[in-house]
Amino acid sequence: MTYCVAIKVRDGLVLTSDSRTNAGVDHIASFRKLYVLEIPGDRVIFLQSAGNLATTQSVITMLQHQVKSAERHVLNVPSLFDVAELVGKTIRQVISRDSGQNQGVDFSCNMLVSGQIKGDEPRLFHVYPQGNFIEACDDTPYFQIGESKYGKPIIDRIIDFDTPLDRALQCSLISMDSTLRSNLSVGMPLDVITYHADALESPGIQRIDETNEQFLKLRAAWSEGIRELFDNIPLFIKGE
Amino acid sequence: MTYCVAIKVRDGLVLTSDSRTNAGVDHIASFRKLYVLEIPGDRVIFLQSAGNLATTQSVITMLQHQVKSAERHVLNVPSLFDVAELVGKTIRQVISRDSGQNQGVDFSCNMLVSGQIKGDEPRLFHVYPQGNFIEACDDTPYFQIGESKYGKPIIDRIIDFDTPLDRALQCSLISMDSTLRSNLSVGMPLDVITYHADALESPGIQRIDETNEQFLKLRAAWSEGIRELFDNIPLFIKGE
Repeated sequence: MTYCVAIKVRDGLVLTSDSRTNAGVDHIASFRKLYVLEIPGDRVIFLQSAGNLATTQSVITMLQHQVKSAERHVLNVPSLFDVAELVGKTIRQVISRDSGQNQGVDFSCNMLVSGQIKGDEPRLFHVYPQGNFIEACDDTPYFQIGESKYGKPIIDRIIDFDTPLDRALQCSLISMDSTLRSNLSVGMPLDVITYHADALESPGIQRIDETNEQFLKLRAAWSEGIRELFDNIPLFIKGE
Repeated sequence: MTYCVAIKVRDGLVLTSDSRTNAGVDHIASFRKLYVLEIPGDRVIFLQSAGNLATTQSVITMLQHQVKSAERHVLNVPSLFDVAELVGKTIRQVISRDSGQNQGVDFSCNMLVSGQIKGDEPRLFHVYPQGNFIEACDDTPYFQIGESKYGKPIIDRIIDFDTPLDRALQCSLISMDSTLRSNLSVGMPLDVITYHADALESPGIQRIDETNEQFLKLRAAWSEGIRELFDNIPLFIKGE
């Protein structure tokens, strides 16, 4: 599996993806699940993927090929809504191409499409395996794909549209840590993007691996903090 | 859906179940998912269920009928292992009875079987829809069924075999709270059992509803504590 989270706050976007791919516990590999397409100064588009690796790699590659050969592509359509539509259409094409000889394989994938096009705000979409999609709004400023449940409570408790960018990054890393601890199919290293609104170019992908001292400190501080909080909270409810 | 958690520590057992049953978001009802069968002084058996309500109700009723009519039943077999085996066998019977005209319905259920029989330790089993089962051990002293992922990280961080009973109860209620917040299909009231090892009789089911002041205080204290912890932790990782 995979765990990706994308948060859209007033100040910009925070995107976090793990990099584990597995087909059974004995076939584990590390693959990027975070991609950038951009024309600096005009637009920057981020793609995060979860699901069948063959499908997601095909979708990304076909979107890149479209830039060279198609009339409409992600780097020339007028809005991020159109980008989400193109991604959805491409997902449908790949899944229908591959699922002829199904044999019980799950070809589906989910993608998060985010970024900013000049003249518009940063936007964030979740594109489903069926190719349809939804957009994040101020009330629900984040989307998750993959193994999303373990890391959802901390985001639900902390994130709103006014959370500062650095705090949103820290929250998404704690969410990732909770998931890493509880589910073997999500694994380091992590790929992270912290995009400041109106930058209109990618800040580059920040890679956090097992030896990253700051991440280890964060894990330890959170883990100790939770234990301390738990130990110090009064025993409100006693067994009867 | 449902969320049930059962924790076996040195001092005894803590069992927590929600009570929401839904078939789509507009067909919601409250049903017990925690049952007790006992011969005080000889044995006490606790059953928690998640899955198809028709299946789980049939299983419970058939186990009760067996006590009156069958030669071997949960109140006379020599060990809790045998109880788990009987539960598994009954689950298989019910599912095979009902799944003739399947029509795409999921008839499956998972059950947690716990308790104590005189002369033995408290024990805890997870019985799968296929009727096979696993037993909790000191390294993994808890099982969850239903919507288990949201509430797993806090249990993974806190619980071990030496956690005191009251602390295990508090942890399972926080785990339940995280699940309630993040998933609509899990709902109050909660049914709780705190069983002290060697009591050999049920302490009775403690019901915690939306108006329970101690539970509201626990929710508030945990929620504020997490926010405070988050706000006070250094910003270890800055966006690049």
